[in-house]
Amino acid sequence: MKILSGKELSELIQAELAGEAAALKKLGCTPTLAVIRVGEDEATGIYVRNKVRAAAKVGLHSEDIHLPASTSQSELEAKVECLNSDPAVHGLICQLPLPGHLNEKRLPERIDPLKDVDCFHPLNFGLMAMGTPRFLPCTPAGIIEILLRYEVPVAGQHVVVLGRSNIVGRPVAMMLGHKGIDATVSLCHSRSKDAAQLMRQADILVAAIGQPEWVKADMLKEGAVVIDVGVHQVPDPSRKRGYRICGDVDQADAASRAAAMTPVPGGVGPVTITMLLKNTIAAARMQMGGPQGGDTPA
Amino acid sequence: MKILSGKELSELIQAELAGEAAALKKLGCTPTLAVIRVGEDEATGIYVRNKVRAAAKVGLHSEDIHLPASTSQSELEAKVECLNSDPAVHGLICQLPLPGHLNEKRLPERIDPLKDVDCFHPLNFGLMAMGTPRFLPCTPAGIIEILLRYEVPVAGQHVVVLGRSNIVGRPVAMMLGHKGIDATVSLCHSRSKDAAQLMRQADILVAAIGQPEWVKADMLKEGAVVIDVGVHQVPDPSRKRGYRICGDVDQADAASRAAAMTPVPGGVGPVTITMLLKNTIAAARMQMGGPQGGDTPA
Repeated sequence: MKILSGKELSELIQAELAGEAAALKKLGCTPTLAVIRVGEDEATGIYVRNKVRAAAKVGLHSEDIHLPASTSQSELEAKVECLNSDPAVHGLICQLPLPGHLNEKRLPERIDPLKDVDCFHPLNFGLMAMGTPRFLPCTPAGIIEILLRYEVPVAGQHVVVLGRSNIVGRPVAMMLGHKGIDATVSLCHSRSKDAAQLMRQADILVAAIGQPEWVKADMLKEGAVVIDVGVHQVPDPSRKRGYRICGDVDQADAASRAAAMTPVPGGVGPVTITMLLKNTIAAARMQMGGPQGGDTPA
Repeated sequence: MKILSGKELSELIQAELAGEAAALKKLGCTPTLAVIRVGEDEATGIYVRNKVRAAAKVGLHSEDIHLPASTSQSELEAKVECLNSDPAVHGLICQLPLPGHLNEKRLPERIDPLKDVDCFHPLNFGLMAMGTPRFLPCTPAGIIEILLRYEVPVAGQHVVVLGRSNIVGRPVAMMLGHKGIDATVSLCHSRSKDAAQLMRQADILVAAIGQPEWVKADMLKEGAVVIDVGVHQVPDPSRKRGYRICGDVDQADAASRAAAMTPVPGGVGPVTITMLLKNTIAAARMQMGGPQGGDTPA
């Protein structure tokens, strides 16, 4: 079984991005990503730190804007507004989840669509869904990078996507079916009655259901390519720290039937961050007056 | 085999809409649909006439804005701008296709999203794709009305959609998979290698490929429900007018295996127009200050 290493692939892509960032700097523009986070959630802090560190590695500037847990909705929106109008900031994201008193559903619509490098704004989501993207959402874009750069045949192939979140399952299902990618896509979810039957027909399986080690070998077609989007901590008393990290796929079991698989960690995760950097560079280029993808007024 | 009559269903829904329109009129608002068309294309003229007639039937006001074939892009956009700012117009569509010198791709983005009753603006398309629609695109909404009102089981069922246009295939695939509808959806297109295999597993087949009578009985599962979105004129010397109307499904053949089927004509077409009227009433209600679906600033 072949390991589709997102970590190795990220290093390759990040080297390309570093070249692009350097070229922009020569033109007087340092691509800059602003990351808003609210409160003291530990995991959120780690995610943001990883993004800031990756940004630095490719030569991007980043701003880690840490607001107190007591921040109100209007204070948060005012901060977004301020960063929207700051010409030195090209990409702007707000790390989720937010503390419970804040409305995270409406927040993406507050971000300037030209700076929306997570592609969570409905205008950008719509351009992507129509096949004329301005930005691509990071996890779906990372999954497609992995497939294309590892030369997994995709056009005409049957991809089964498990899970219908707006962050992974739905957009990756849409993008895989677009012209130029050309997969046949089946989108399954918790209410699907034929999921098992469809999964066993999948040339490529994308597991994004949020259930630790749910996908077993007997659900796969022999020779399937498996993309594991899940990241879970499961208790493991044999480890010093008391837990281990796993995905949505029981990888030890699935390895007996899969032809190739993304590991967890080191699979989809690193490429997702790399796609965020790629979007930030694209945003900087657009704001310098380059092509704007969908080209829609904000 | 059961006939899923879109014509009969439309009459039922239009009676409901007439009641809603009458209620709005009592509040001093006559829901108004403006339809722009450019040039002398005969089919376009017929489509617009059908919409205007249906609007009148449920008590909506409509404006048939017929521009000469020589209209320039900037003149067309100026007309859209003018109707955007006219408070008496609640819904605004531009009948496609436009004459070849006009850019029809960029036009939907010019229409005020609050008046975009075709749901072609990327912001509205995105809200729909995310499962938080302001408007639903008319043909996909019509297909779902047919399934739900004829009590075809959809939740958990396997729907195969043939065709990936932004007007029918893609959005209906998205909408069928959303929470509350809950179908398992496979989207097939011209490059799919497994289309035949998937079609034979479909509880519901939506044919929107634009190929006359392409779907035959042997492609169907016994007892499938078939939604035929195609409308074609095929030569038929036995008819006085020299042609007959058919769909994407060879209906005479498919009838031997399907449990239920929408006819052509009289199937999806009439319900599509009815959904346009429904959206226009919803737009009027929003512009009076009612709920705005996605609730996104334009």
